[in-house]
Amino acid sequence: MNRIAALSAIVREEGADAMLLTGEVNLIYVTKTTALEGQCLIFPDGSAVFVTDGRYTETAEQQLIPQGFSVITRTNATALYEFLQQLLREHGVQKLMYEDDVLTVDEFAVMRELLGISFLPVGAKIRKLRANKSEEEIACIIRAQRIAEAALNRLLPELHTGMTEREAAARLNYYMALGGSEKPSFDTILLFGENTSKPHGVPGDRALCEGDFVLADFGAVYQGYHSDMTRTVAFGSATDEMRNVYETVLAAQAAAEAATREDMLCCDMHNAAAEVIANAGYGQYFTHALGHSVGLEIHESPVASPRCNVPLTRGIVMTDEPGIYMAGKFGVRIEDMLVITDDAPRNLTQFPKQFTII
Amino acid sequence: MNRIAALSAIVREEGADAMLLTGEVNLIYVTKTTALEGQCLIFPDGSAVFVTDGRYTETAEQQLIPQGFSVITRTNATALYEFLQQLLREHGVQKLMYEDDVLTVDEFAVMRELLGISFLPVGAKIRKLRANKSEEEIACIIRAQRIAEAALNRLLPELHTGMTEREAAARLNYYMALGGSEKPSFDTILLFGENTSKPHGVPGDRALCEGDFVLADFGAVYQGYHSDMTRTVAFGSATDEMRNVYETVLAAQAAAEAATREDMLCCDMHNAAAEVIANAGYGQYFTHALGHSVGLEIHESPVASPRCNVPLTRGIVMTDEPGIYMAGKFGVRIEDMLVITDDAPRNLTQFPKQFTII
Repeated sequence: MNRIAALSAIVREEGADAMLLTGEVNLIYVTKTTALEGQCLIFPDGSAVFVTDGRYTETAEQQLIPQGFSVITRTNATALYEFLQQLLREHGVQKLMYEDDVLTVDEFAVMRELLGISFLPVGAKIRKLRANKSEEEIACIIRAQRIAEAALNRLLPELHTGMTEREAAARLNYYMALGGSEKPSFDTILLFGENTSKPHGVPGDRALCEGDFVLADFGAVYQGYHSDMTRTVAFGSATDEMRNVYETVLAAQAAAEAATREDMLCCDMHNAAAEVIANAGYGQYFTHALGHSVGLEIHESPVASPRCNVPLTRGIVMTDEPGIYMAGKFGVRIEDMLVITDDAPRNLTQFPKQFTII
Repeated sequence: MNRIAALSAIVREEGADAMLLTGEVNLIYVTKTTALEGQCLIFPDGSAVFVTDGRYTETAEQQLIPQGFSVITRTNATALYEFLQQLLREHGVQKLMYEDDVLTVDEFAVMRELLGISFLPVGAKIRKLRANKSEEEIACIIRAQRIAEAALNRLLPELHTGMTEREAAARLNYYMALGGSEKPSFDTILLFGENTSKPHGVPGDRALCEGDFVLADFGAVYQGYHSDMTRTVAFGSATDEMRNVYETVLAAQAAAEAATREDMLCCDMHNAAAEVIANAGYGQYFTHALGHSVGLEIHESPVASPRCNVPLTRGIVMTDEPGIYMAGKFGVRIEDMLVITDDAPRNLTQFPKQFTII
């Protein structure tokens, strides 16, 4: 089903007269392009109007008309809400669905005041629709993931004693950008030694030493779609404890992947990994949820957390990223992206993950 | 006046019992650090409580207690809103100020439901407070600006025929990161030739040719504070038209700077530049507002647009960035950051801006 049709079905189901999209991410979703700015209206009859300005008219017409949109150019002579009000009147819209998870309270108050019609929230319904990725969307995530993997492959041989976390992170981002990433998928986490025990540490002036773990948690963006991976490697040498912890995390990750099936609850995916870590005696050091969905946003729903009772459905792209964090010593995290299928999940991550000393 | 005291004064003025801050930017503002995650409560008596979790307790105590905060650590045993409800009850809070410009409609609905007290919006009041920067804040913006200038100084001699916009942008971001920028201030705009006519163009596969304009609009972030600058230089050679347009933009920028004074309306700053461009016959090609405020966010209020009737007050950091964009040919934009003072504005940008062929 195409995306306009899917959104139009929501408008009909809810008995609304139209849906207004203004959020950047939902606009990429419905238009399949990152090249535009504007607003989109979807109607119950399956028609869709994209409102833009002179800077984007040509691109909008080229890309959107073949997909079934009408394109309207608003000039500076008319303020946005005045223009929308006129358009909504022409279409007889009295009940409008809006993005309650995008608009802030003050933005919505202005819109409600100026448009003077009634509103219905649509955020959760669009998030649910976006959760199940098409092959076309998965291809973009894979492309982003390959860009990220190539960047890490280029960085690892360049790591040397004395290099700072900040410099290594800067290079990794640079290599992703050269590879075609639109931007880093999120603030790159690249940490050395004792800093690896901080799940959300920020790269700083810590210089690399022999015997450190190097942890890289990062991703690329391709056509708006995000990738996410984590690898942890030892630099120069490793203790037995480092190996043991690493192998425990790797086994936990594999256990979650082996357990993952369509219709299983998200929390059970988390529990499959947590059990392996607890049985190895490291339960208290696995302090976060196993994973989150990935797509046009780096953190989407559902999430593989102990409290998420949502069933896994086909096309969800979920990270599988257990970790063990021992404050003052080191941390290990290993992360792949899994697509839920009607059989075993499809692992989108190709980067090697056996214990490695570089 | 310190920041806790200023926020506490707002709580008193509005007759509220407390203010809750959860937005990343407002938290950096009140805590003066980017190193923490949590929530902050400000009370009418000038006291402040920072709620965090175990990952941040040590850092929070070190950095916040000397500034007068109490620090409370919430464990995973209690959900956030349950914890906040208990805390608000202990302080007898019945009327809570909240960030209506940060919380989305659905987030606020959940909070209102779970806390079960009454709410007052505080967004506009905090934005107004944040508009006037202290010397300490201006020092951070200057530091970010110097990082950006050093990166451009390093990039310019490396530009060569055949290099793509994408590669040049990637290098500029890389050099800023090496220089200590926490991240690019916004998606770096780095364009060649006819692409320079797009005010918000995205760097792509266009390769640099002799006779092109090179336009770089970019910034760095230091301790959460953003910088913003634009320079346009000719590569190899330039036509008379390129020179004429450049000199017109430069004169417009200088006119705005020369006119800028405390208590003047923002729109008049815009008009001072627009008049120069119109008089030179390029009025139709200056298609955006002259500038915007810069600080913990790249776009803050007030803005130097034709419709902004807010007076300029001391400590506002406003960009001065006129442009002329001739579709299919080229565009020129030149951008500095100005601080409003009790006399002539202080220009934070040191990078040369006379017409240059590199």
